Amino acid sequence: MNHYTYFCPSCQKEYSRKIIEENLIYLCPDCGKAERNKPLEGILKIKYDYNEIKKSNIKNKLLNSLPGSIWNFPELLPLEFDEETKEFPGIDKKLLNTLSLNANPLIKLKIENFNIYAFDDTRNPTFSYKDRASILVALKALQLGLKQISAASTGNAGSSIAGICARLGLEANIFVPKTIPESKRIQIQSYGANLFVVDGTYDDAFDLCLEISSKKKWFNRNTAYNPLTIEGKKSGAYDIFISFNGKVPDNIFIPAGDGVIIGGIYKGFMELLELDLIEKLPRLIAVQSSGSNAIVRYFHTKKFELKRAETIADSICASAPRNLFMAYEALINSSGFAIEVDDDEILNAQKEVIQKFGIFVEPSSSASFAGLKKAISNGLVNEKENHLLMFTGNGLKDLNSLKKWNEEIKPKSYQQWLDELNEAET
Amino acid sequence: MNHYTYFCPSCQKEYSRKIIEENLIYLCPDCGKAERNKPLEGILKIKYDYNEIKKSNIKNKLLNSLPGSIWNFPELLPLEFDEETKEFPGIDKKLLNTLSLNANPLIKLKIENFNIYAFDDTRNPTFSYKDRASILVALKALQLGLKQISAASTGNAGSSIAGICARLGLEANIFVPKTIPESKRIQIQSYGANLFVVDGTYDDAFDLCLEISSKKKWFNRNTAYNPLTIEGKKSGAYDIFISFNGKVPDNIFIPAGDGVIIGGIYKGFMELLELDLIEKLPRLIAVQSSGSNAIVRYFHTKKFELKRAETIADSICASAPRNLFMAYEALINSSGFAIEVDDDEILNAQKEVIQKFGIFVEPSSSASFAGLKKAISNGLVNEKENHLLMFTGNGLKDLNSLKKWNEEIKPKSYQQWLDELNEAET
Repeated sequence: MNHYTYFCPSCQKEYSRKIIEENLIYLCPDCGKAERNKPLEGILKIKYDYNEIKKSNIKNKLLNSLPGSIWNFPELLPLEFDEETKEFPGIDKKLLNTLSLNANPLIKLKIENFNIYAFDDTRNPTFSYKDRASILVALKALQLGLKQISAASTGNAGSSIAGICARLGLEANIFVPKTIPESKRIQIQSYGANLFVVDGTYDDAFDLCLEISSKKKWFNRNTAYNPLTIEGKKSGAYDIFISFNGKVPDNIFIPAGDGVIIGGIYKGFMELLELDLIEKLPRLIAVQSSGSNAIVRYFHTKKFELKRAETIADSICASAPRNLFMAYEALINSSGFAIEVDDDEILNAQKEVIQKFGIFVEPSSSASFAGLKKAISNGLVNEKENHLLMFTGNGLKDLNSLKKWNEEIKPKSYQQWLDELNEAET
Repeated sequence: MNHYTYFCPSCQKEYSRKIIEENLIYLCPDCGKAERNKPLEGILKIKYDYNEIKKSNIKNKLLNSLPGSIWNFPELLPLEFDEETKEFPGIDKKLLNTLSLNANPLIKLKIENFNIYAFDDTRNPTFSYKDRASILVALKALQLGLKQISAASTGNAGSSIAGICARLGLEANIFVPKTIPESKRIQIQSYGANLFVVDGTYDDAFDLCLEISSKKKWFNRNTAYNPLTIEGKKSGAYDIFISFNGKVPDNIFIPAGDGVIIGGIYKGFMELLELDLIEKLPRLIAVQSSGSNAIVRYFHTKKFELKRAETIADSICASAPRNLFMAYEALINSSGFAIEVDDDEILNAQKEVIQKFGIFVEPSSSASFAGLKKAISNGLVNEKENHLLMFTGNGLKDLNSLKKWNEEIKPKSYQQWLDELNEAET
């Protein structure tokens, strides 16, 4: 079954899967460019025969599925699929089934007079949105017979692909900046991955991973660079569609570093449009930290300028967003925008999300809540609309951020507590 | 609807829900005893009209459900339920639906020639098995109009009830020993709970919580003491039944501290027997650390002796297992046994589970795998049977254990890594 091709949105060229996959090509062979510390050019997208898919009663099948079950839709995936056995050749079906994402991601937040929803991807197999990309990349590696996968990461992508590789019996090589939160570093190592800690930024780790992986012929999961990362992340859009029972929210607030989650969600909604399953795109809104705001700056100036990024929200810390141009396109085409919040606003939002709603998010996730608040107070969105916040990472993956607003408590003896609590009563 | 009563298995007395619940009674009014540093006596169980339930086609309903959806079976829950509106009075249905447990807990482990399965409760709302008890206790508090819940905890029960309270708008008061893993302490605080750190053991925290809660009329979630903890934890048995498609495994390895997970799973399987849904109990096997082995000792001697517990597996560290007698009954009646493993075996098993199977467990969970290995090598179980390992807690909740087998990696510059990796190739 050759049900998909690779397509370059920049130069409009189309390539067969054979050419791209057998030669481990990532960017457009014609116009692709991966330069140090710069956004990528010529990122490939995957194209299906949407007319064929339309004939297959896809709407009912989707709406009768649980969120997180994208693997039940081989027609929407760039994987080889055997129509007779109904299996993905080379992939153990039972093992694949264990890699389901959170089946119940939608949570309506208890805020009076508002329709605010959270999309909770903190309960995925390795506890972040990144699993959506990692699983697809790892399945492709299995089908291509590749045993080694590499990735650059601020922490979540790395721990994600490390965990998925452990589950599927592959080997992971992860490049991270030295600023990686300790919990994420330990998670990556615990899964048995080879870890390369770079005395530099995430962007340096990204470039180093490109250079080494190309020499060693490791299958490279670098976000945006490998088109399957965007393709895997499109599943979020399908899960939103399923969770809202065939509808879509008005606004989606998406934490943005490299801009690949935005790119993926945009790709998913564009497919849903193409398949006549929705009537319009939801407005996509990129939320960044003011310490790492390249997408916000580009949104306003249409110029990329390298500025060293620094923020407590490590998952969205990227000086040179590799998917900058596609993210921009997503914002413009969906009538969305980019907004920045500072680290204090992010930490306050983290506290509020965890304490008021009981969802254990990391700072990059709470950035989406901080962004919503700012957008409402600036009149950028209508408060009466439906707002969806993407919660993309688990708070347990970054203990140090939590320590900033949780002081250590001094132990007291049994009797001391008894006296103190009895006193408080009287 | 008065579809359940409270029942004391020790003195055989039965009590109406009104008497027990309206007076905040926990143990049997007749024979119950809660003494400092001792197993509890007169722990109440909940009894339903099983003949009535049998008439309701329960088997099909269960087998057409997903694991983790116990809230769809009000006939099996000690909650008020309105048959007309199909709702639990006092409980926001939408909010309850967000508290689903991992819908896909069963993972067959890739070990040749063996049928070993993991039951993965690391992806629950607060990332441990304890959510099964916490959710039921919190729902009961809502129905009783109680706003304050308390609990003693080694870490997971506390972070669980703290998180569930945050989600449902209740207030949590948590008593923990000073040895609590930092990640769990911070998780509890982050949810906004009141935290009381006791300069003593978990057992001291347990007794202090009893004393204070009774004075303050806080609804007490202390494990075993509150019969709803065992009742909530029975859901694991139902989810195992659903996951195995109406069958049960031969052996279930259960990490044991207070013995409440065992008690709960036993209760669930006894109900499944009573409902004619299974033909025999699976063998229940308690796994303890040799540093906290009161259940193992009792299993062999039928004597409880207080010995200060100490183990890296904090979740199963209990000097005086409060549910000792019920746990013993579960082991005996299921033809099971108790087995101990040392902390090194637990940490080695943790490494193996995370690296080979990609499941991010904490030490108490990996104890079940260490216990299986020992039971096989000691000839206590037949290796050809089906074995299920209960993975009850997430590894991210205890970073320090992971640090014991993951050394910090020294950062190197871009060029250094490049040189080193190029050299390795030649």
